[in-house]
Amino acid sequence: MAEQKQFVGQAEFAKGLEGVIACESTMGYVDGKEGKLIYRGYDIFELAEHSTFEETSYLLLFGKLPSQSELDDFKQKLVQQRAVPKEVINALKIVAKTAHPMASLRTGVSVLGAMDKNAEDESIENYTSIGISLIAKMATIAGAITRFRKGKKPVDPDPKLDHTANFLYMMNGQKPDDYTARVMDVSLILHADHGMNASTFSSMVVASSMSDMYSAITAGIASLKGSLHGGANEQVMHMLDEIGSVDKVDAWVDDAIATKKKLMGFGHRVYKAYDPRATILGEYSQKITEAHGRKDLYDMAKRMEDKVIAAYGERGIFPNVDFYSGTIYSAFGIETALFTPIFAVSRISGWAGRVIEYVTENRLFRPRAVYTGEMEAKYVPMAQR
Amino acid sequence: MAEQKQFVGQAEFAKGLEGVIACESTMGYVDGKEGKLIYRGYDIFELAEHSTFEETSYLLLFGKLPSQSELDDFKQKLVQQRAVPKEVINALKIVAKTAHPMASLRTGVSVLGAMDKNAEDESIENYTSIGISLIAKMATIAGAITRFRKGKKPVDPDPKLDHTANFLYMMNGQKPDDYTARVMDVSLILHADHGMNASTFSSMVVASSMSDMYSAITAGIASLKGSLHGGANEQVMHMLDEIGSVDKVDAWVDDAIATKKKLMGFGHRVYKAYDPRATILGEYSQKITEAHGRKDLYDMAKRMEDKVIAAYGERGIFPNVDFYSGTIYSAFGIETALFTPIFAVSRISGWAGRVIEYVTENRLFRPRAVYTGEMEAKYVPMAQR
Repeated sequence: MAEQKQFVGQAEFAKGLEGVIACESTMGYVDGKEGKLIYRGYDIFELAEHSTFEETSYLLLFGKLPSQSELDDFKQKLVQQRAVPKEVINALKIVAKTAHPMASLRTGVSVLGAMDKNAEDESIENYTSIGISLIAKMATIAGAITRFRKGKKPVDPDPKLDHTANFLYMMNGQKPDDYTARVMDVSLILHADHGMNASTFSSMVVASSMSDMYSAITAGIASLKGSLHGGANEQVMHMLDEIGSVDKVDAWVDDAIATKKKLMGFGHRVYKAYDPRATILGEYSQKITEAHGRKDLYDMAKRMEDKVIAAYGERGIFPNVDFYSGTIYSAFGIETALFTPIFAVSRISGWAGRVIEYVTENRLFRPRAVYTGEMEAKYVPMAQR
Repeated sequence: MAEQKQFVGQAEFAKGLEGVIACESTMGYVDGKEGKLIYRGYDIFELAEHSTFEETSYLLLFGKLPSQSELDDFKQKLVQQRAVPKEVINALKIVAKTAHPMASLRTGVSVLGAMDKNAEDESIENYTSIGISLIAKMATIAGAITRFRKGKKPVDPDPKLDHTANFLYMMNGQKPDDYTARVMDVSLILHADHGMNASTFSSMVVASSMSDMYSAITAGIASLKGSLHGGANEQVMHMLDEIGSVDKVDAWVDDAIATKKKLMGFGHRVYKAYDPRATILGEYSQKITEAHGRKDLYDMAKRMEDKVIAAYGERGIFPNVDFYSGTIYSAFGIETALFTPIFAVSRISGWAGRVIEYVTENRLFRPRAVYTGEMEAKYVPMAQR
């Protein structure tokens, strides 16, 4: 009985499984103290400088940088997989005009899985090929949602464009210039994986019952939707919109500090140093907001960063990845409600890679709860209640 | 650095978080050694004997047995909430004829969430009211899926019928007799909650990012779909179909033991004694299969149980809840592929109750992975690979 008894009564445990080890992984590593992030051994600064989202996705899925022919082959597969079945478009037509864009994305991927006759094949080859297909199709679905929200028809993918340029094209209906496409590509690289974050963990937990890749990714989207996770970059933008202009930043931050208002886009459960992704995005934000005539957004954010670090930097409160991404997407003319779907268009590579890694040596996730309720209640017939 | 270092290299940890405590709960308790299951303090044998699925759902959501007026009010709410928006039916029309029924159910609930303008309200009152709505609507969606698979139109709910009788009516198009409805009701009671099982945990993990109730339940369905979880009762039925008749059971089991074939519906990670749910369902199976002229199913299962317990009982291998449920549903003429959706129609009460309990004192689930990959890979330009 002793081994069971630990699950009754009250116990010490880590709320939110903080610090609890759930698995081993070779996917990536976050060193929160040093402010370091690596994917498959490669520092995020190197990948942001030299790699592309396509190459980084290959790296995350297969554990190594591709040769030229491997990359060509991978990119060709992505192009071939961009189109989604008409049933997915029809389902999006039903929901996407009015629904939360992440509820639409969740629905689109769920329908995609429902239409795939190979969804139940549990081989790692099939998980991998669905993973590649979803990296391609997540962008198409997010693009279609963007269009339906504007009351427009989806834009067909253009096979001549690379993944990210095509994604921007499917959202905006216009082909982006090279620098704009590159900045978005870097943002997708930076968001692709991040240790055992809540959406990745959600995907893995669902996958561990040997459900299927679509079910796992649907759960990842469902989790990323939350205000404590992917929704955070949207809240940064709402905060900047509320502040309004750079000259109002100081007073707003002083008031937020005095009234202990939550500062969106600052602090992270893992990072106690500067989030390396914020360093990179901050630099790009400065250049790209200027190029798109929205330097005001960067100026507000930068002023806010300086004020907050002066107040809280010693306590390990720094901007996180969500702080600058929104200024960039806004400069591109993208509606704030679409920021989290863009996050998903990137994070799919990490979700797929970690799901494949986990199910290869799968073990069902089934923790315990400590039972703190009554043990021997007697059923009372209705007449005596 | 020391506190970070534990996340690099190799570490001892519990695979699948087995035995790890994820939270406290007053929802229910599984004593695997004693073969005991309680909901909110009430023994499952008492609930199966005296309660109804509606009353048990109230108990799970609100932590106490309802008074007559509370139960009347709750039942009335369930009746009022049965109808689903036409958009949900339209989406099911797209997928349900051919898709895995759990992929259809996952899609139906996702669309339901996409259409609910109150989905983002984070109040506990709203979580509760969506929970009640989903208890009602899960049955309607599962009923519609059943009908679409047969190429028929969904059956409108009948407000004069109780929840479970109406559910059978929406699946079969015929009103069940009282005993049939009661046996199904008991089965729904028995499947409604079971500690921190994988689908419940999936729902809670997704809810913990403060996504929304529909996202959480979509993830629960996605997880329950897996062959290691809800799919197990379908596999029991396939196994019985494969055996074919009671006289072939002995040879089949002997062969399975000799070749170490997996015996579906036996053993459980938590129960090392007889699963109380299997005790109750076994008794009902005997009676109801006879009433529906399918005693052959019970006879095969019972013979198999005796053989397997003789061989493995000492090692704690007994029938689990999945072993007899399928014989009952088959006797009702329900297609094997619908068994897991029926499980979901019941488990929604546990999912909703535990999600509400968790988000009331929410903490984002974010465990760690131990990084076992390379630490300092140097990016090699393409030309040099």
